[in-house]
Amino acid sequence: MTYLIDNLQYANWSEKIFRQMREGGVDAVHVTIAYHESFREMVLQLEAWNRRFEDHADLIMRGTQASDIDAARATGRTAIFFGFQNPSPIEDDIGLIEIVHQLGVRFMQLTYNNQSLLATGCYEEDDTGLTRFGKQAVAEMNRVGLVVDMSHSGDRSTREAIDASARPIAITHANPSWWHPARRNFGDDVLRALVARGGMLGFSVYPHHLKEGSDCSLESFCQMVAEAADRYGAENLGIGTDLCQDQPDSIVEWMRVGRWSKQIDYGEGSAAAPGFPPMPDWFEDNRHFGNIRAGLTSVGLSETEVDGIMGDNWYRFYAQNFTPQQA
Amino acid sequence: MTYLIDNLQYANWSEKIFRQMREGGVDAVHVTIAYHESFREMVLQLEAWNRRFEDHADLIMRGTQASDIDAARATGRTAIFFGFQNPSPIEDDIGLIEIVHQLGVRFMQLTYNNQSLLATGCYEEDDTGLTRFGKQAVAEMNRVGLVVDMSHSGDRSTREAIDASARPIAITHANPSWWHPARRNFGDDVLRALVARGGMLGFSVYPHHLKEGSDCSLESFCQMVAEAADRYGAENLGIGTDLCQDQPDSIVEWMRVGRWSKQIDYGEGSAAAPGFPPMPDWFEDNRHFGNIRAGLTSVGLSETEVDGIMGDNWYRFYAQNFTPQQA
Repeated sequence: MTYLIDNLQYANWSEKIFRQMREGGVDAVHVTIAYHESFREMVLQLEAWNRRFEDHADLIMRGTQASDIDAARATGRTAIFFGFQNPSPIEDDIGLIEIVHQLGVRFMQLTYNNQSLLATGCYEEDDTGLTRFGKQAVAEMNRVGLVVDMSHSGDRSTREAIDASARPIAITHANPSWWHPARRNFGDDVLRALVARGGMLGFSVYPHHLKEGSDCSLESFCQMVAEAADRYGAENLGIGTDLCQDQPDSIVEWMRVGRWSKQIDYGEGSAAAPGFPPMPDWFEDNRHFGNIRAGLTSVGLSETEVDGIMGDNWYRFYAQNFTPQQA
Repeated sequence: MTYLIDNLQYANWSEKIFRQMREGGVDAVHVTIAYHESFREMVLQLEAWNRRFEDHADLIMRGTQASDIDAARATGRTAIFFGFQNPSPIEDDIGLIEIVHQLGVRFMQLTYNNQSLLATGCYEEDDTGLTRFGKQAVAEMNRVGLVVDMSHSGDRSTREAIDASARPIAITHANPSWWHPARRNFGDDVLRALVARGGMLGFSVYPHHLKEGSDCSLESFCQMVAEAADRYGAENLGIGTDLCQDQPDSIVEWMRVGRWSKQIDYGEGSAAAPGFPPMPDWFEDNRHFGNIRAGLTSVGLSETEVDGIMGDNWYRFYAQNFTPQQA
């Protein structure tokens, strides 16, 4: 089997987008359901997804384990997996980690740009690594099968999470900084440490993470992936597009400042360009994964390597990391 | 297989009680996790249970489907199923019905003594039946596999729930009022309507529901069960002891007045006897189910009938009613 899995999207969900997933042959998508939400607010997002599963039962289904992807394929649907980009929904309560896992959540970032109760985000000046609660939370996430995601964390916190975690962790949506030195991209040493412990890197197509931004060429992106395959092993790589399709600019503001600031913070953007940047023309929505597949093939990756990067590697990772830890 | 299932307990949970469940050979217990709790407060009760499952993994396990009872038996444990005695945890939000089902809740009373957002409790003067929200909630409970429990509801509400529900409902812990006319017991006509739609009655051993209270004899109780088997069919009967073992009197006060009154309401008790009444000497804890089994046999019920009442009937009911409705 070769799977097509996108391990990070946060779109303005609609029937149109679910139909595009089907048109693009997307077997599974990991979707973000929380940036700054409290536990109770996050539950409202789960309810909204339950409604979508009911209203669009012909297109999508709830995914909680790797085999759900096979069930989705067998019925011509896309499996939707949940994740948080911030630990805000577990508040200050380690018991909520198992609760959110029971509710189907499978990835949780320890930080979103800022200092959290667990670790330090990539936009803080000083990264003090995992907090006391952070160390406990990683162990509990390992126990229940909630994957640690460090996409928006600082370097030291990311390294400490890699070391502290008994199970492989993920950077679901980012690129290597040797290709494009952005605050959200990661250095070679961190990425080597990540894969040495079985961790996965998902390549982002969000323009701020791309060399030359929205003008980045497919060839440049795919050459970067090929170079990463040489350095980190193709089996540890996947896709995490960070597609934020059809979102109004008010959403990027919520992502950036939530309720933590009364002033605007432009994050990866700027006063001149405060909104979502346009996607590169070779990846505008779920129908365009074929371009990435073709591009990876043309830069010389083998069919097995391409299959792995396009989805088989995430499938294997899901199968190994979503269930409770064996004693 | 013959199962031993108690379909209602609310004890002050401890290792001692879990060991008594094992000593008594109890395969499954439906436990109450909410009386007046909001959704968020109920989640704290789920967390406390998750801790118990972790701390006492040799004695108990979380149950969400009938087959978990077989898994529990195979590993020498008791499966614990969750229920609410009040719809307070779903607040005013129909979407929370699927969420609580995803969290493992399998029974929900539409009322606890008082008027709720869904129906009328058995202590109100006027029973106005299912509310607008109540009718919607019953349909949604049917859809997801959350069983309607009318144990603390008024007669009209109970009849309307029986009629409105597309799937069988339960009265998990009450007795017939022709044996003992208590506010919480049910009339013959309601019980006939219940079983005519495949519903289940669980016999309570809570002294206020027993003829002669704490002094009720095992023989009188078992003769009542035999009479009920004649009237309603033994296959529609089970046990729901309402065991509130080791609880301080402050708990019965929480059950009775929650936050809805600043005055004390004695419910089934009285100013002279405000606390939990002593259990009958033939059923003090989970080790005493053998007394009930022996008593049922000696009043002339067949082995198959006794097996059904002691657990096989609840097993069948669980197997048919905890999963989503088939389209």
